[in-house]
Amino acid sequence: MILELIKSEGIAHHSYLIGDGGEGVVVDPRRDVDVYLDLAQDHDLEIKYVFETHRNEDYTIGSRELEDITGALIYHGSKLEFEYGMEVFDGDKFELGSLELEVLETPGHTPESISILLRDKSVSEDPYLIFTGDLIFAGELGRCDLLGESQVSWMAQLLYESIQEKILPLGDNVIICPAHGAGSVCGADIRDHDLSTIGYEQKTNPVLRMNKEQFIKFKLREKLYTPPYFKKMEENNQKGAEVLGVLPYLRPLKYPQIKEMMNKDAQIIDIRKPTSFGGGHIPHSLNIWREGLSGFVGYFVNYEDPIILVNDNEGQLDPMLRQLIRLAYDNIYGYLGGGFPKWYLAGQEVGKLDMWSVHQLKKVLDRKEDVFLLDVRKFNDYKKRRIAGAHHIWVGDIPERIKEVPQDKKVVVYCDSGHKSTTACSILKQNGYTNLSSVLGSMNAWLNADYPVVNGD
Amino acid sequence: MILELIKSEGIAHHSYLIGDGGEGVVVDPRRDVDVYLDLAQDHDLEIKYVFETHRNEDYTIGSRELEDITGALIYHGSKLEFEYGMEVFDGDKFELGSLELEVLETPGHTPESISILLRDKSVSEDPYLIFTGDLIFAGELGRCDLLGESQVSWMAQLLYESIQEKILPLGDNVIICPAHGAGSVCGADIRDHDLSTIGYEQKTNPVLRMNKEQFIKFKLREKLYTPPYFKKMEENNQKGAEVLGVLPYLRPLKYPQIKEMMNKDAQIIDIRKPTSFGGGHIPHSLNIWREGLSGFVGYFVNYEDPIILVNDNEGQLDPMLRQLIRLAYDNIYGYLGGGFPKWYLAGQEVGKLDMWSVHQLKKVLDRKEDVFLLDVRKFNDYKKRRIAGAHHIWVGDIPERIKEVPQDKKVVVYCDSGHKSTTACSILKQNGYTNLSSVLGSMNAWLNADYPVVNGD
Amino acid sequence: MILELIKSEGIAHHSYLIGDGGEGVVVDPRRDVDVYLDLAQDHDLEIKYVFETHRNEDYTIGSRELEDITGALIYHGSKLEFEYGMEVFDGDKFELGSLELEVLETPGHTPESISILLRDKSVSEDPYLIFTGDLIFAGELGRCDLLGESQVSWMAQLLYESIQEKILPLGDNVIICPAHGAGSVCGADIRDHDLSTIGYEQKTNPVLRMNKEQFIKFKLREKLYTPPYFKKMEENNQKGAEVLGVLPYLRPLKYPQIKEMMNKDAQIIDIRKPTSFGGGHIPHSLNIWREGLSGFVGYFVNYEDPIILVNDNEGQLDPMLRQLIRLAYDNIYGYLGGGFPKWYLAGQEVGKLDMWSVHQLKKVLDRKEDVFLLDVRKFNDYKKRRIAGAHHIWVGDIPERIKEVPQDKKVVVYCDSGHKSTTACSILKQNGYTNLSSVLGSMNAWLNADYPVVNGD
Amino acid sequence: MILELIKSEGIAHHSYLIGDGGEGVVVDPRRDVDVYLDLAQDHDLEIKYVFETHRNEDYTIGSRELEDITGALIYHGSKLEFEYGMEVFDGDKFELGSLELEVLETPGHTPESISILLRDKSVSEDPYLIFTGDLIFAGELGRCDLLGESQVSWMAQLLYESIQEKILPLGDNVIICPAHGAGSVCGADIRDHDLSTIGYEQKTNPVLRMNKEQFIKFKLREKLYTPPYFKKMEENNQKGAEVLGVLPYLRPLKYPQIKEMMNKDAQIIDIRKPTSFGGGHIPHSLNIWREGLSGFVGYFVNYEDPIILVNDNEGQLDPMLRQLIRLAYDNIYGYLGGGFPKWYLAGQEVGKLDMWSVHQLKKVLDRKEDVFLLDVRKFNDYKKRRIAGAHHIWVGDIPERIKEVPQDKKVVVYCDSGHKSTTACSILKQNGYTNLSSVLGSMNAWLNADYPVVNGD
Repeated sequence: MILELIKSEGIAHHSYLIGDGGEGVVVDPRRDVDVYLDLAQDHDLEIKYVFETHRNEDYTIGSRELEDITGALIYHGSKLEFEYGMEVFDGDKFELGSLELEVLETPGHTPESISILLRDKSVSEDPYLIFTGDLIFAGELGRCDLLGESQVSWMAQLLYESIQEKILPLGDNVIICPAHGAGSVCGADIRDHDLSTIGYEQKTNPVLRMNKEQFIKFKLREKLYTPPYFKKMEENNQKGAEVLGVLPYLRPLKYPQIKEMMNKDAQIIDIRKPTSFGGGHIPHSLNIWREGLSGFVGYFVNYEDPIILVNDNEGQLDPMLRQLIRLAYDNIYGYLGGGFPKWYLAGQEVGKLDMWSVHQLKKVLDRKEDVFLLDVRKFNDYKKRRIAGAHHIWVGDIPERIKEVPQDKKVVVYCDSGHKSTTACSILKQNGYTNLSSVLGSMNAWLNADYPVVNGD
Repeated sequence: MILELIKSEGIAHHSYLIGDGGEGVVVDPRRDVDVYLDLAQDHDLEIKYVFETHRNEDYTIGSRELEDITGALIYHGSKLEFEYGMEVFDGDKFELGSLELEVLETPGHTPESISILLRDKSVSEDPYLIFTGDLIFAGELGRCDLLGESQVSWMAQLLYESIQEKILPLGDNVIICPAHGAGSVCGADIRDHDLSTIGYEQKTNPVLRMNKEQFIKFKLREKLYTPPYFKKMEENNQKGAEVLGVLPYLRPLKYPQIKEMMNKDAQIIDIRKPTSFGGGHIPHSLNIWREGLSGFVGYFVNYEDPIILVNDNEGQLDPMLRQLIRLAYDNIYGYLGGGFPKWYLAGQEVGKLDMWSVHQLKKVLDRKEDVFLLDVRKFNDYKKRRIAGAHHIWVGDIPERIKEVPQDKKVVVYCDSGHKSTTACSILKQNGYTNLSSVLGSMNAWLNADYPVVNGD
Repeated sequence: MILELIKSEGIAHHSYLIGDGGEGVVVDPRRDVDVYLDLAQDHDLEIKYVFETHRNEDYTIGSRELEDITGALIYHGSKLEFEYGMEVFDGDKFELGSLELEVLETPGHTPESISILLRDKSVSEDPYLIFTGDLIFAGELGRCDLLGESQVSWMAQLLYESIQEKILPLGDNVIICPAHGAGSVCGADIRDHDLSTIGYEQKTNPVLRMNKEQFIKFKLREKLYTPPYFKKMEENNQKGAEVLGVLPYLRPLKYPQIKEMMNKDAQIIDIRKPTSFGGGHIPHSLNIWREGLSGFVGYFVNYEDPIILVNDNEGQLDPMLRQLIRLAYDNIYGYLGGGFPKWYLAGQEVGKLDMWSVHQLKKVLDRKEDVFLLDVRKFNDYKKRRIAGAHHIWVGDIPERIKEVPQDKKVVVYCDSGHKSTTACSILKQNGYTNLSSVLGSMNAWLNADYPVVNGD
Repeated sequence: MILELIKSEGIAHHSYLIGDGGEGVVVDPRRDVDVYLDLAQDHDLEIKYVFETHRNEDYTIGSRELEDITGALIYHGSKLEFEYGMEVFDGDKFELGSLELEVLETPGHTPESISILLRDKSVSEDPYLIFTGDLIFAGELGRCDLLGESQVSWMAQLLYESIQEKILPLGDNVIICPAHGAGSVCGADIRDHDLSTIGYEQKTNPVLRMNKEQFIKFKLREKLYTPPYFKKMEENNQKGAEVLGVLPYLRPLKYPQIKEMMNKDAQIIDIRKPTSFGGGHIPHSLNIWREGLSGFVGYFVNYEDPIILVNDNEGQLDPMLRQLIRLAYDNIYGYLGGGFPKWYLAGQEVGKLDMWSVHQLKKVLDRKEDVFLLDVRKFNDYKKRRIAGAHHIWVGDIPERIKEVPQDKKVVVYCDSGHKSTTACSILKQNGYTNLSSVLGSMNAWLNADYPVVNGD
């Protein structure tokens, strides 16, 4: 039996290739499907089927890419009208060498969500593992709010029943292969374990021991952010996204081309670290650090205007290109060839951002200087623990709530680590704010320095 | 200045990426163009132009693939009507950072052949190197027979003039970057040096010191083989081949699928070594060893029926797939997943071929046994030196001259090394011959064993 | 939490890198330790400890290589006197970021065997997974016979108690990470699942439901082969093998060097497939196919005379070199540069081996021709099911039982697939047998062809 | 014929593997020799000889590493007493398949310098190419000052004679393979061409057309910097450096370990770009950007105290490790695991450096503010063209001339691009300077912005 876990960084997406007897199945493929084709060939597997555990919302699924190349058949749940592929129903079974894949309808994250139970019939009729999609993760359950707030109660009930009636009875020993790992926005707080078992979840996740009423209340209280790009992903994944084929060409650009494209509303994304952005950057560029690209680009970048990346010429751009096309940013256009130094070597204007250590911040606050302290972390984190006097706007909400930030004051932004705060500053700079500081290390450093915080409401 | 030589094994094709100042040019790209895109990104080069030194005949050019992805402009000589790209003329110049590329019209291999002369203006006005296409190689000159025998005299004259008037006067120091290396069928006997210089060629190639008359005579005497697939390449390269995009899917097949496909006229190519083929093979399969695939597939395999590869599950198939699509074999269908052992483990019929050492052959000949000894090397090699009593048919001519091989006798086939002879045997087997032997090591081993040969006419 | 499974093909050895909080641990490292260093750097882990679950017998452990490079501390069980590293005892705990590793003494496979239980304290006090060494595998238990037959009863009792008292009570959900996968000789019949859980093993392995008496009887009946090289591994792993540092140089050799080395008792191993060996080989070479090298070299190759590999120049030799040094074959000397064709091209003598299909064999047997049919599979497999009239000698026993094979008769050898039978034939050839055939596909093909077998005693 | 050029970035070192007939030679190997072993195996070459064109001064040669692994013989010129290897003399010849390597004694860069002339006897007796070591490069000649100023005249005369009497007479067509490419400190201004020819050099380098007297004068005027680490390299390369074997372990460190090591005089090298260093860094760290590491580490870092690297966790550290051990920095100890963010997230003190654009500098100068403008470029560049009012100290001389920099003034540092100026600032910061700015883009940007400069004396 072949079982390969394929991780897509950034969105912390887990997809799987399963194979036996020369035939293979992919569960929830990403859009750049070469990884499945390569692995399948390593194992001499013909890819026969693709399963989508649900209409994914955080990335554009690669099912149709695989279908286009291999002729594989696509299957998904029946409780949503997909414009491609075929429907499967509770109890449907598929053979794969000595493996049997059984479809379980497990609504809750979405109505059409399915899980795929795997048995190795050469061993036993007992279930071996289960692909749970976004139903249950290591240490977490799927979110229930994607159909809108009004549906949470209903979806939470479905999810409760799916877990209690379909999953837990399979037995403690069954291995859980979820569709996301730690860092995904598809669960509130997924643990950094790739795998789990039903028994381990039952022992370690108290939510699984709630009764239905408690559980629904718990889910109603859960407040999660929904990046605006989810909409496009849902549309793509319901209709079936356009087949991409070859990855888009990432054109190296020289500074005059960058300037020309900026006049044509190009979206310049500086993917360097906060310190680099602070030390110098192309004026009006958006800063999203490399590892945060998938997680935050969907809040700030549109699908029409050309996207241009700025880097320090260290590390490959190919992973960035892939992160973008997984989110259907096919409007990626190019990058600053040679990296940011090429910009300033040409004598171009250079923006800077004042980076503060927490110690600087502490001194300023101790001296009671008149600054607007802005916390851009998740609201729940802010509520739990914050620096005294901090205002709150979630980084993703800055564009629409920008008027709440005063233009006539020093604005000091912090987040968890100094990454999101620098992203926030880059957006404020784009909107004409000039007197800005971003706090390196932010709340993490602040706590490690033993500086005081305000807790709770 | 960036100068990258990209070798395509099998057809011994040399293409080049040249770059400066963030801009790049590709000379004679192959059809799987990812290598150029990757190199260009490593060097932050935007690919601006593609030059075709001539309408290539031994592979399908990748110009349109590059154009499709990057928008690069395609240029070729004006003495042939291409249905894509643009014409360039003698003296046309292109800037690339501090480099200048100048077009020289250098007919002779074909009428529209051009060379590209490179100067680095940051250094000097003196020419630095020249891309000569199929005009001149290390130790060899281009063939003049591709327009047909009647044109050889005229083409040889053109080639002579191109060399004498355009190339040699550039100066001894100019580096020559040809379009082929050792092993190509585009020159009679190319040396295994990647580069040369005009001076070194002049000193070491006596043909360059002939007068025009001598030269034309020399070329008229040159007999080279023209694989039938050249026709399709010429057509592709004149019209512009279809854009391929992603490489075709190489489907792993199980033995029943192979059998089913064989009933549908699938072309089974066994790419293992002669010894492996001898020890066991799928009946009716064609044997062309891995390194010989590009060189010989074009004689025996058509462009309609699906192609299936058989290997020993050692080494990647991706290079084989690439060799085939470079020759426009887009009808590649799949391969025997798990390699040849999967065939015999299934209890299928297994063909065998008797492999002889030269010592066995010697004994048989010494005993004057009645065998039909068949030499399938190039005719020139046969004429120069052969085993006494050998009949000659060039391996590529076997299909059409098969009736010359007797069915009622032991047939012993030799070539240079035992590779082509095994290919020949596989074709004879497909045609019902059963009493066959292929000689391992063939003429090479025979000579190394100090066995006698017959020389000359 | 970082958890990486590192597979060493051939011996089907599974080792693990576990990390958290910037610190890492390796369980049962192989001797070529670069893989751990590279992975550790990818995850920014300092390798602090190495655990040996037991004195491994099938490969030379890489603990001292890691110690030499990183300064990591080595730990192993206390029931054997190791000449390096430190002892750990039941209940000893190690911290690794938020992870806790607890030593469980679990004798049975060997007296000093330990298991390593892993808890993630950031999640819960509940055990998450366990590294079981050779105690329990997916679908199998460790062998109990390595101390000799007289100890099996006692070892089986220990193993039973380790499983029943230490492992099963941990809970169904605990993930099992064993030290071997399918194909290892350290368990009779390990399943091809990388992971398992305690619950899945309990449900699917009936041996786990035996009582102690039944279990001991069962183990007493279990007959497994012990390759002679185990002795050296045990010695290496108890004393601590010499630190290797850089991998040995794999010298490309030309045919005269090979001949010279053969005169100095060099051991020539032809790692090509049976069909290739059949089609032609260096006389007096041993054939062990690439994938079988680790599994069979230890029966036939000594640690003194230089080892030379012969291949077909397809596929890398580096994996073969690594397989050999994992088995402490530091006497590896070189390989035939350019592969087997270089031998026959030089006009050297070529050996051949007659490869039979099962259909040929069937015909011969039907005609009642006088052949000595030799089955070289495991004795248990022979007893269960064999071709009528077959004699049995386990391939590994051929050297010492060679006199049982008649010299004056046609000898036809079969095994499961045709690989081991060809190895056997190569040994017979080395010993002067000439009238030999090896059966391609062997028992697998025979059964697939629906030919009759004899079952049971 | 195999000819592989191996480039070592940073020191712009070119070494070569040449092979034919299964045997190979390495010219001027670097210390991490795996690249030669891998290439040799790809081509089935046994490495027989190592040639050292001279006692290299800018890196520690890898001859003895190769000797240790392969048993290759080491050869060098006879005009220096090496404590390892063997001497060769003018006219000595070595066979390598059909290739002939002839030693030419070509003193000038150093007295014992040799060149290696290559003929392919299968083609002709004419020389094909020459490995010239540090005698002649593309567009440049070797420096003559390494024995000290008093020897320049004598060495220049030798070099002149070597070129005129040994090299130029070989013929215009001979290809030149030098030991360095653009960016090396072993030639004043090497061109960015990998290869050249004798004719192209003669046509394009006016120095080659000087008479002996002019040439000696020219060389006497040439002022080049000699990094202090050259001394150790010369010693290593004369005595024979210690054999390294495996690359040193690059230990990931956590911030408390870094602090502890700093108390033990660890040398912290921040290899990030100037902007990153400006935005935040570990106080007291030295900044040398990644690409500049080899070129500048030898001025500032000693061979005793442990070296620790700080990066942004983007891009591999392995290339940096290799750059360091090529310069014999075996005292490399570790790196900040997780990169610089791990430092500030821990709430540690963060240093900053004010990065100026050239526009800021222009304004400050226009306002005639009282700043100490410091130019740290090469003296020749300063003399040729500088910003008005700039003082000059070569970046490599800062440690010993630091007292010339005032402590009571704003110090603004510029160089060519902003990289060396940031290195300079980091050294000034280590020495207690606090009021510092480094100019991004420096002279390049200044000129591109069309700001005025002062030329000449």
